[in-house]
Amino acid sequence: MARLVMKFGGTSVANIERIRNVARHVKREIEAGFDVAVVVSAMSGKTNELVGWVNDSSKHYDACEYDAVVASGEQVTAGLLAIVLREMGLQARSWQGWQIPIETDNAHGSARIARIDGTKLIEGFGRGEVAVIAGFQGVEPATGRIATLGRGGSDTSAVAVAAAIDADRCDIYTDVDGVYTTDPRVVPKARRLDKVAFEEMLEMASLGAKVLQVRSVEMAMVHGVKTYVRSSFDDPENPRQGTLICDEEDILEQQVVTGIAFSKDEAQITLRKVADNPGVAAAIFQPLADANINVDMIIQVVSDDAAHTDITFTVAAAEFERARAILEKGKAEIGFTTLQSSGDVVKISAIGVGMRSHAGVAAAAFRALAEKSINIRAITTSEIKFSVLIDAAYTELAVRTLHSLYGLDKA
Amino acid sequence: MARLVMKFGGTSVANIERIRNVARHVKREIEAGFDVAVVVSAMSGKTNELVGWVNDSSKHYDACEYDAVVASGEQVTAGLLAIVLREMGLQARSWQGWQIPIETDNAHGSARIARIDGTKLIEGFGRGEVAVIAGFQGVEPATGRIATLGRGGSDTSAVAVAAAIDADRCDIYTDVDGVYTTDPRVVPKARRLDKVAFEEMLEMASLGAKVLQVRSVEMAMVHGVKTYVRSSFDDPENPRQGTLICDEEDILEQQVVTGIAFSKDEAQITLRKVADNPGVAAAIFQPLADANINVDMIIQVVSDDAAHTDITFTVAAAEFERARAILEKGKAEIGFTTLQSSGDVVKISAIGVGMRSHAGVAAAAFRALAEKSINIRAITTSEIKFSVLIDAAYTELAVRTLHSLYGLDKA
Repeated sequence: MARLVMKFGGTSVANIERIRNVARHVKREIEAGFDVAVVVSAMSGKTNELVGWVNDSSKHYDACEYDAVVASGEQVTAGLLAIVLREMGLQARSWQGWQIPIETDNAHGSARIARIDGTKLIEGFGRGEVAVIAGFQGVEPATGRIATLGRGGSDTSAVAVAAAIDADRCDIYTDVDGVYTTDPRVVPKARRLDKVAFEEMLEMASLGAKVLQVRSVEMAMVHGVKTYVRSSFDDPENPRQGTLICDEEDILEQQVVTGIAFSKDEAQITLRKVADNPGVAAAIFQPLADANINVDMIIQVVSDDAAHTDITFTVAAAEFERARAILEKGKAEIGFTTLQSSGDVVKISAIGVGMRSHAGVAAAAFRALAEKSINIRAITTSEIKFSVLIDAAYTELAVRTLHSLYGLDKA
Repeated sequence: MARLVMKFGGTSVANIERIRNVARHVKREIEAGFDVAVVVSAMSGKTNELVGWVNDSSKHYDACEYDAVVASGEQVTAGLLAIVLREMGLQARSWQGWQIPIETDNAHGSARIARIDGTKLIEGFGRGEVAVIAGFQGVEPATGRIATLGRGGSDTSAVAVAAAIDADRCDIYTDVDGVYTTDPRVVPKARRLDKVAFEEMLEMASLGAKVLQVRSVEMAMVHGVKTYVRSSFDDPENPRQGTLICDEEDILEQQVVTGIAFSKDEAQITLRKVADNPGVAAAIFQPLADANINVDMIIQVVSDDAAHTDITFTVAAAEFERARAILEKGKAEIGFTTLQSSGDVVKISAIGVGMRSHAGVAAAAFRALAEKSINIRAITTSEIKFSVLIDAAYTELAVRTLHSLYGLDKA
């Protein structure tokens, strides 16, 4: 029989009534003839409650213990959904990561899935059982300790399970009905996409679209898992199909730009009057890399003084304080005069596999933004996307401008 | 090194501040030279929240799924206490039942511990680690599914772990500082006992004293685990010793009666005009036994009519509705005219191993109660205790009367 993985996030399982609604979605697919594995997140708010307790317990908590505490949220939802499914007359049982097992590496708190043994799940299908799987968690085989996959990790659990049991499809149910050309709260004319290429989705997820965890998209791409993003709030009897994430080749009418993403979780740091000599970049960026701080956009501008230069770059807002502390500590070695910073910036990105074969896509954006008097602080580009860093105050204006420019507005 | 098991219940770990207090108790024992295993319950209120969700999900839930959901509460506390202990500079790690493993039978929801492998815990001691163990839970080895031990099961977990690692002592920390001659809220003159015999504690727990789970006392008795009941709210630097539960022989000055217990969780059922012939008792009690309803006190009184009799008995208040439904269903076969019931009854018991060698202990009680005009509805006796069923309105009067009668009042 065809196999299906369905994933439901925290808002979709926020209370028993919503869990019952999820069960109706599952029932529909069972009746359509699928063997179903359901992956669930913690009830919304629960993970925050658990993380709050951990933070109250210690500033320097052990990641293994964090995982033991925080993984409990998914365990609860899995059990409850299994109970509700059985109440509806379906066979169902819950699975925790260690029971399957879903094996991970030892990076507790943001572990990667190393291997999933689908045997027991498939045996369960043979008995007519729905497998209800606690998302976000696995087990480190060497130690037998629980490991969690980082925020949004249930998406990755779902895609990985789909790959492990060779599922025909993986449906990610969220509170929106698919992937949009941009955030509809910012651009009312945003359109839902019927299809989006894996590479595009990967960039969108990396660049601020919160619809899917980056790693889940990577995994879907690598294993070729046909993944839908769709809404759990649709009528379970008659749902819409959502957005298919698929190979580029499966999308017939390819647009140059597929979507506009934006991220406010950026902070800009500028070091003034850095000595303009070889090795200074390493002096700045190596300590940040050593501290696991990701530097995104970098620009170097020659200042009035020919022997010195200004260096600007961005880091994730959450890493900003750590980054500043590291740079101030290395001030003597790096030799800058002042460190300036701004959290009031936004990174706006346009994504589309069509950019590969079209020149001048980014240039058109720079012109359009200039016409609206929006100052560009930094630019990065890659094969299928470009990003600009601008003042946060211009976010909506810039997103709408690019959305129109690339013909993404609803008819 | 000497080994110690410490158990803390839900009110002792109700929030992070209390968990920190628990950690201070643990630290004291580590500094005193013990290898320590700590067994913890869920934060108070959490188990009720989880059970509430299960009940909202289905009236006829699967016990395995109930266990998967409800066991999560202890998992959270164990992780948090491990984090707090590490914050204090101690080595510590959390253990879930399946990780140790604590193996149980397959009676999900009220499983019994079958076997505990203490090897990993003892290896941890070798590394200087405090073992923080989620109470109330284990794993069914044949299926690998989580099983819980029933309400109050963490006491049993603690005693069982103490037996498995051959601990020198098992300290059960509660919100009271030991075992009292009776409930001090009812009798202000109640005294804390320094020592109480296993058999006495077993009767007290069975008969309504809520200080320890019955099964934990059985296990302590069978394995000879020296168990203390003491207060987690004592100053961690200077705690009182609590009550030692030990072999009868270890108690030098044995009293005739050690304590007075009472239970309001009783319901009385009277069947009027039951045909007085052989087999009628089986017709009444077999269906109740088949439904797993425990019948406690039974009295049969000849009624005016010589061919008929009245039968009175008690069941747990929680089982009352089920019992009545079963009896009404069998009314034709049993042949009674009316079923009368009362929940306004209390069972009052006097317990003491000294009763074995003293005659007339119960008779003195009947006289004393009669002098206070307290009507006795039913009586049961055993080697080391007797119980009387009376109107609930007389609870305090009866308990105080017996407490004085047997010389238990504080000097």
